[in-house]
Amino acid sequence: MCRFLAYLGEPVFLNELVCAPTHSLVHQSLHATEAKTETNGDGFGIGWYGERQEPGVYRDVCPAWSDENLVNLCSQVRASAFFGHVRASTGTATTRANCHPFAHGRHLFMHNGQIGGYHRIKRGLEALIPDDLYDHRRGTTDSEAIFLLALANGLAEDPIGAMETTFATVRDLMQAAKITEPLRFTALLTDGVTLTAYRWACDGRPPSLYFRESEAGIVVVSEPIDGCREGWQVVPKGATLQATRGHPAIVRKGGDVCRIAA
Amino acid sequence: MCRFLAYLGEPVFLNELVCAPTHSLVHQSLHATEAKTETNGDGFGIGWYGERQEPGVYRDVCPAWSDENLVNLCSQVRASAFFGHVRASTGTATTRANCHPFAHGRHLFMHNGQIGGYHRIKRGLEALIPDDLYDHRRGTTDSEAIFLLALANGLAEDPIGAMETTFATVRDLMQAAKITEPLRFTALLTDGVTLTAYRWACDGRPPSLYFRESEAGIVVVSEPIDGCREGWQVVPKGATLQATRGHPAIVRKGGDVCRIAA
Amino acid sequence: MCRFLAYLGEPVFLNELVCAPTHSLVHQSLHATEAKTETNGDGFGIGWYGERQEPGVYRDVCPAWSDENLVNLCSQVRASAFFGHVRASTGTATTRANCHPFAHGRHLFMHNGQIGGYHRIKRGLEALIPDDLYDHRRGTTDSEAIFLLALANGLAEDPIGAMETTFATVRDLMQAAKITEPLRFTALLTDGVTLTAYRWACDGRPPSLYFRESEAGIVVVSEPIDGCREGWQVVPKGATLQATRGHPAIVRKGGDVCRIAA
Amino acid sequence: MCRFLAYLGEPVFLNELVCAPTHSLVHQSLHATEAKTETNGDGFGIGWYGERQEPGVYRDVCPAWSDENLVNLCSQVRASAFFGHVRASTGTATTRANCHPFAHGRHLFMHNGQIGGYHRIKRGLEALIPDDLYDHRRGTTDSEAIFLLALANGLAEDPIGAMETTFATVRDLMQAAKITEPLRFTALLTDGVTLTAYRWACDGRPPSLYFRESEAGIVVVSEPIDGCREGWQVVPKGATLQATRGHPAIVRKGGDVCRIAA
Repeated sequence: MCRFLAYLGEPVFLNELVCAPTHSLVHQSLHATEAKTETNGDGFGIGWYGERQEPGVYRDVCPAWSDENLVNLCSQVRASAFFGHVRASTGTATTRANCHPFAHGRHLFMHNGQIGGYHRIKRGLEALIPDDLYDHRRGTTDSEAIFLLALANGLAEDPIGAMETTFATVRDLMQAAKITEPLRFTALLTDGVTLTAYRWACDGRPPSLYFRESEAGIVVVSEPIDGCREGWQVVPKGATLQATRGHPAIVRKGGDVCRIAA
Repeated sequence: MCRFLAYLGEPVFLNELVCAPTHSLVHQSLHATEAKTETNGDGFGIGWYGERQEPGVYRDVCPAWSDENLVNLCSQVRASAFFGHVRASTGTATTRANCHPFAHGRHLFMHNGQIGGYHRIKRGLEALIPDDLYDHRRGTTDSEAIFLLALANGLAEDPIGAMETTFATVRDLMQAAKITEPLRFTALLTDGVTLTAYRWACDGRPPSLYFRESEAGIVVVSEPIDGCREGWQVVPKGATLQATRGHPAIVRKGGDVCRIAA
Repeated sequence: MCRFLAYLGEPVFLNELVCAPTHSLVHQSLHATEAKTETNGDGFGIGWYGERQEPGVYRDVCPAWSDENLVNLCSQVRASAFFGHVRASTGTATTRANCHPFAHGRHLFMHNGQIGGYHRIKRGLEALIPDDLYDHRRGTTDSEAIFLLALANGLAEDPIGAMETTFATVRDLMQAAKITEPLRFTALLTDGVTLTAYRWACDGRPPSLYFRESEAGIVVVSEPIDGCREGWQVVPKGATLQATRGHPAIVRKGGDVCRIAA
Repeated sequence: MCRFLAYLGEPVFLNELVCAPTHSLVHQSLHATEAKTETNGDGFGIGWYGERQEPGVYRDVCPAWSDENLVNLCSQVRASAFFGHVRASTGTATTRANCHPFAHGRHLFMHNGQIGGYHRIKRGLEALIPDDLYDHRRGTTDSEAIFLLALANGLAEDPIGAMETTFATVRDLMQAAKITEPLRFTALLTDGVTLTAYRWACDGRPPSLYFRESEAGIVVVSEPIDGCREGWQVVPKGATLQATRGHPAIVRKGGDVCRIAA
């Protein structure tokens, strides 16, 4: 399991959310309180939208809590949209290419969860990714494979529908392989303008997900970064959240998504 | 704070103590139970005596829990004397040269504790190390500085006396600098034949230290590696322990050491 | 391209061949003279046979020339069979899992060369590896994929025949994909008792390969480690070499191998 | 020896100078042509001035040629003043804290050269650094020590005079220690507004230094980044260069500096 954070709104320096708060993402790398694992020390990453259409990405394999480059970058970079992620590996190697967020074109994607029995469906899953997208695969995680397959399924045009299709495909592969371990998928996607958050699971136990809205913007997190619950709303199990700059976030419960997550 | 383990006795593969037990040193890197910090992820190291008079050393900056080289080496190397250490930095950088154990000639040394206000006496302490030993300084930790100064004070010939002198010197430097933070020193020294363990502190609160003796040999640890207390003896606060292959360990309480630690 | 070294014979300390000679493997990491690239700084690895049936492996991503762990291990480990490799990536990431040698059961394998247009046949090649072997895939290189496929083709029982089959399969995949870049394959395999060296290429230009025999044993290298040619024999293009402890090496030219390499 | 690059002028993306040119700094990390060493693979660093008064810094220990984070950052960050450095260690460890540029307050400093016999005067040199500046020492290099001592000597107010004093002090320490190896000092300092370049040496052989001016700004480099000499001017041996945004650079030859360098 992992911990992550996303922001969309008025430009802020990354360290205001990633490093400075009482229970910041960097603090959660050592002391997560709502995760299966307290320590998220198997690498980390940040992604942000600056002057280019494509996001910047900085990922490394050391624990976030001791990385001076991360502190330095977060104090320099100011952005109106960014992602941060601290990783607790569920089995795949600690390499940069396995660290989140994953970038493709204008998109950033990060995931907290797991595909149960992933190694048994890995090739089956990879076989579904078209060649041109598979060429962009750099690592070996389930998360990156889901992202690439979802892109093939139209993620850019329909973030929720494409991910539902992808989620269902993965679930079917797992069932065909008689895997009984759960599929849990709390994830975030952005193109720098719109943010989509998913909190789905086959066993009704998706990892935690919260958000906080203000005039300045929206923050979406695995767990509140100020160590208290005030001002934070839970994204319900089985739901998705969509936010666009300048508009209030929309939480969609039930429907097709619910059936998938049931 | 850190966690460590030492062994002296019949040759065993390192993984029998470092990796395999329920609450092995590698497990303690993620879940220490008697330390100030539960996570000891700021690097690690092993040192062992093989066919050479000088010990082998393998140290790296990643967390021990995810290092496949460590697992591999520990399953290959069999030794009658070895050290293992997982590090939780008290402020100095996560570099290989700052990881324990430190080697010099036939000796290995590792430390769990801290010199309060170290940066204020760092140069004063380093100034006391003779040139030929200072040339061997590779890192920036208090632990390495103490080791080198103790070597200058005759550590090879008189492990307890030389360390008492060194400990007193450090304490005096701290007092002169009006440092009120404590000096805590739970440490291990070996030349492959004799093992000396120190559990000293200026404030009466040295980090934990245990040992277990059998016909095969002696294991000295920060905390029991089998998750239970049976068969383990506590090294008392202010005491030293000395063990030589083929002889029962001797614990010395009180005396000069006691006065220093009082 | 890369540089490598293998030894089979009377037990020697690894540093006698890996670190100490004038033009040692570590020296070649910075100053190779017969390779396409002078610098081989994209990671390195050693593998050796100790007290276990399975070999020990130490691999890391930094350049070999500055790795103190490598120097230390090579001065401690003595073995009658070992491999050493310094890597110059042809495109895949610099991760430990992409460093050679690759280990599987009793076997070590390392490769110097490349599959032209590899990313275009990567999935096709991986699809041929049986599930139980694919589960052991840790990295993303062509070299590891070839090794696993060759194991499936019977490498343990017939090192030359299985590799011929594998080489032909890769070549066919390349032809089907209309890849015009060459397939070059200078590689080494051992189980600790027998050593097999391959020097094959589709374009008649396999990377260099030399060997030197003495009463003590055989050394097989990408380029002579003493900086001179005296005492070294070239493994001819298209040939294989097989050596077993206590017997002179056998070089097989032409035949099936030749046709493949033509 | 090392290779470096500095820019002062109209804002440009770092990759236009650091990554993209034919003989860019990243290319020089693998193929330097005017340096003592062709390979500069012992770490690297960039420093730049963004929205904060203090510069951003990103340094890492892997070779620059294979670091995807460096490529990514350089394509995102646009600055009117920045430094880039690829390192070839002259003996000190490959750690982040030993990589250039070094930052202190508003200043960035980087160095190409060496203090001959540095380990023999290391403590003497460090002893001259005032406590408050010594507290900022993170690494073990001669370069960082010179920078801190120069800051104590008034580097912020008088970049040339303070460095002359510092250079003379180091030279005197070397003479007192009867060191016959040379002191070579090609270095760059900036506060984001003014750039000072030094090309000094005790033996008349300072590392190479070039600059190119245009309406957009000034580039100062170890060796031309376009692979040709056209448009580049040599900074003479023993000289300093000073540039301020919007004004032509001033090269000062001879004088006090000359006598020091003679």
